[in-house]
Amino acid sequence: MSHGDESATDVPDAYRTLLERSEKLTNLQMASMVLGWDQRVMMPEGGTPARAKQLSTLSSLRHELLVDEEVGAWLDELDGADLTGAQAAVVRELRREYERSAEVPAELIERLTRHQSETQQVWQEAKAADDFERFAPALSELIDLQRERAAAIDPTESPYRTMYENGQPYLPLETVERVFEELREHLVPLIAEIDERGRELARPFEGHTYDEETQMALCEAALDLLGYDREHGRLDTAPHPFMSGNQFDARITTRFDESDPLGALGATVHEFGHATYQLGLRKEEYGNPLGSPRSSGVHESQSRFWENHVYRSREFWELFLPTVEEHFPQTEDVTVEEAYQAANRVYPDNLIRVEADELTYHLHIILRCEIDRAFVEGELDVAEIPEVWNDKMDEYLGVRPETDAAGCLQDTHWSAGFANFHGYTVGSVLAAQLDAAMREDLDVDGCIRDGEFAPLREWQAEHVHRHGQRYPTEELIEVATGEPLTAEYFLDYVDEKFADLYEL
Amino acid sequence: MSHGDESATDVPDAYRTLLERSEKLTNLQMASMVLGWDQRVMMPEGGTPARAKQLSTLSSLRHELLVDEEVGAWLDELDGADLTGAQAAVVRELRREYERSAEVPAELIERLTRHQSETQQVWQEAKAADDFERFAPALSELIDLQRERAAAIDPTESPYRTMYENGQPYLPLETVERVFEELREHLVPLIAEIDERGRELARPFEGHTYDEETQMALCEAALDLLGYDREHGRLDTAPHPFMSGNQFDARITTRFDESDPLGALGATVHEFGHATYQLGLRKEEYGNPLGSPRSSGVHESQSRFWENHVYRSREFWELFLPTVEEHFPQTEDVTVEEAYQAANRVYPDNLIRVEADELTYHLHIILRCEIDRAFVEGELDVAEIPEVWNDKMDEYLGVRPETDAAGCLQDTHWSAGFANFHGYTVGSVLAAQLDAAMREDLDVDGCIRDGEFAPLREWQAEHVHRHGQRYPTEELIEVATGEPLTAEYFLDYVDEKFADLYEL
Repeated sequence: MSHGDESATDVPDAYRTLLERSEKLTNLQMASMVLGWDQRVMMPEGGTPARAKQLSTLSSLRHELLVDEEVGAWLDELDGADLTGAQAAVVRELRREYERSAEVPAELIERLTRHQSETQQVWQEAKAADDFERFAPALSELIDLQRERAAAIDPTESPYRTMYENGQPYLPLETVERVFEELREHLVPLIAEIDERGRELARPFEGHTYDEETQMALCEAALDLLGYDREHGRLDTAPHPFMSGNQFDARITTRFDESDPLGALGATVHEFGHATYQLGLRKEEYGNPLGSPRSSGVHESQSRFWENHVYRSREFWELFLPTVEEHFPQTEDVTVEEAYQAANRVYPDNLIRVEADELTYHLHIILRCEIDRAFVEGELDVAEIPEVWNDKMDEYLGVRPETDAAGCLQDTHWSAGFANFHGYTVGSVLAAQLDAAMREDLDVDGCIRDGEFAPLREWQAEHVHRHGQRYPTEELIEVATGEPLTAEYFLDYVDEKFADLYEL
Repeated sequence: MSHGDESATDVPDAYRTLLERSEKLTNLQMASMVLGWDQRVMMPEGGTPARAKQLSTLSSLRHELLVDEEVGAWLDELDGADLTGAQAAVVRELRREYERSAEVPAELIERLTRHQSETQQVWQEAKAADDFERFAPALSELIDLQRERAAAIDPTESPYRTMYENGQPYLPLETVERVFEELREHLVPLIAEIDERGRELARPFEGHTYDEETQMALCEAALDLLGYDREHGRLDTAPHPFMSGNQFDARITTRFDESDPLGALGATVHEFGHATYQLGLRKEEYGNPLGSPRSSGVHESQSRFWENHVYRSREFWELFLPTVEEHFPQTEDVTVEEAYQAANRVYPDNLIRVEADELTYHLHIILRCEIDRAFVEGELDVAEIPEVWNDKMDEYLGVRPETDAAGCLQDTHWSAGFANFHGYTVGSVLAAQLDAAMREDLDVDGCIRDGEFAPLREWQAEHVHRHGQRYPTEELIEVATGEPLTAEYFLDYVDEKFADLYEL
């Protein structure tokens, strides 16, 4: 219980016991993460039935230990207790998690879990058949169950807000929606301008084959350069890249496309950013909120910082292109400018979120958030979703899906919940804001050009990682950057970069 | 709850609930196994502190769920209930596990666990310094705690017997000690005769270097040949080879010595044998004793069957030597007879158990069992252990360790418990007995020569694996081989093989 620099008062017993419970909850969650990593990276396929049962046992035991009446009693006892700021933060976060779980009846959780896995199945069939009508009834039932869950958590709050807050704690919905509106208003014309400009950026890596083994070596070389600590991490492959772990062991994965080495490289750097967050959390706070990441939005700010502001910079390509050429001699004639362009190409005619570029990506996100909100609030009927989806794609990106499989059925996201997408765009916006704040202290371009990444990692650790959940999200953003979340830096960054790239 | 071919009566609720609990216990145990596999095979070293905490939480939660008063109440309710044979077996096994845990006070478990990990530390230092006196006090305290634990489990039973039964359920100590005595009386003169004969078997693989990558490919080729199901398994490397998993996912590991390809190959085949046992358990019984392996001794019979009776046979080398030569062209002049001899060499001057050959190995085991028994029963003082150890090595194998590091301090085994070694020798004895029974039904030599391993796997699955814990160990041995455990077949097998090899 060494909560940093604040002097500890006499710690109430209830606080001590609560911390012990918190560590148990963390251990169960981390055990599930290891099982999940293993399932996606190492497990032979035939292991699935037993693995599903193991994960279900871990998750239900964790739930029981969380919503235990004793936890409620300890929290009550600590209400108004004389605690340091750090201790109060621990209690605040555990109370939040307790309340958001304990208020939901177990049978509702069971119905929801069952229906989510059925919906997942129906979605697969509907997408394969390009048949939204087959999916609609499952989706309608899902939204009812999710509304019921939101109402159980807080009957006085709008369900959509409750759903949003599940994923983005302590970051007002108003703030995020204002930022999203600014983005939409700015990016839609910018993308249209790029599209009309008709300038083709260089695609110097096309037309060759890049074997997976050498791509892996190239990704490892990038990680060596960026300073990934192999005492506490490893790189593997998985169909969908992800990061998994904690401050002692934060592993990443990537995937390979034999026709395009940038896909694996960008994904590797992105996941490396996530890993830096975990590895920057304080080891002595493992098991409690002070040693846990703040939110999905803040997590994404770390991955996007390394992806957008490092990997996609001209300086990075000045530094790294020789290494690419060493690994793949077929690229020896590629220039820094060409490589830089390849890493930053915008292609508005793309319909699929997970394949979108840095700029159009956010309109895929904003579209989803808008549709989810209208749907949850009953302003949009389930049958209208495909039409509204396609209209918005047309309005924002100038393309219209010809099938629902390439439209509103493309993602599995609804099975997991509604209002789940904000973190991705919050992450990019915050990454730009952190980048700007970092530039007040450091010569970021110079560091990248020289391959000196330790100062960048240390700045993020100092300003973001080491705080864990010490501050509510809004406050953390102010502590780290000196101001509230704002679209300003992200828009300045894209304006400058793309005006230059596309000669606007 | 499909317990095979027996017709189910109306199942009492308590039975149903007990099965659910059993599945939870299995899931927690399997989650721990995944975390353990990961730690030994994949985890970056820096992950250790958090992993230790995760494993400790899983193990204490499992203990709580096992010794739960409710479990006792369900078991009481099922006492004398109208159950099928399979159901009664489930209850018998869960009752056994419950009683062996519930009777031990939690604080004793804690003291023991703490002292075990301290002992492990002291042992490392004592071995490095070749200083048994440094280790003796920890060992004395350990034996007291283990005696206390045994007395808590059954105050009316001798502590040594209780300790033995922890590892070898339902196989009378008398039976095993009689078998061990026969082995000792037979093997000591046989080994002396081999030693005196002075015949040097061929060592055709010496003097070359065998790179790890090709050794791995060779091990994979052997597994392909033997029929390892990759839908439910995988091969990796670890410092100490082991098998981990269940009927859905049974993974193995091996290790490499660049000067000797047989080390990795033999270890791979051994662990493959363990995996066949897991994979032969009935999938629909996952989570209860009918879908769990019988005992360490029976498990070892499976690994030893494949290692001794397949891999170490002339027929296997007739079949497999061309594959070795393909992988390592430097071995192209090796003959089948030479390879067969290399896989079967006896070297009585070896002092170290884990490096021992097929024959001397059992005297290392018997020595440990004898010393443990005398020590637990107070007939041997801790200070006398080194001398007695060395005397026995001299008597059984004709060699005397010059240091305790190469003598009684060589293994970490006492930290884990006493009376833990019987399974290894029981395994080899039972493997020979199963091999003899199999030969009544199958042309084993012909199968091996033709690379037809499915009949061998299926015979073991049918006679051993599919029963899980349906029968007590003694009964399982009779069901599978038609007679009780006997040294006869093992002694016949070694007599014939080594008389031929050493021209005795």
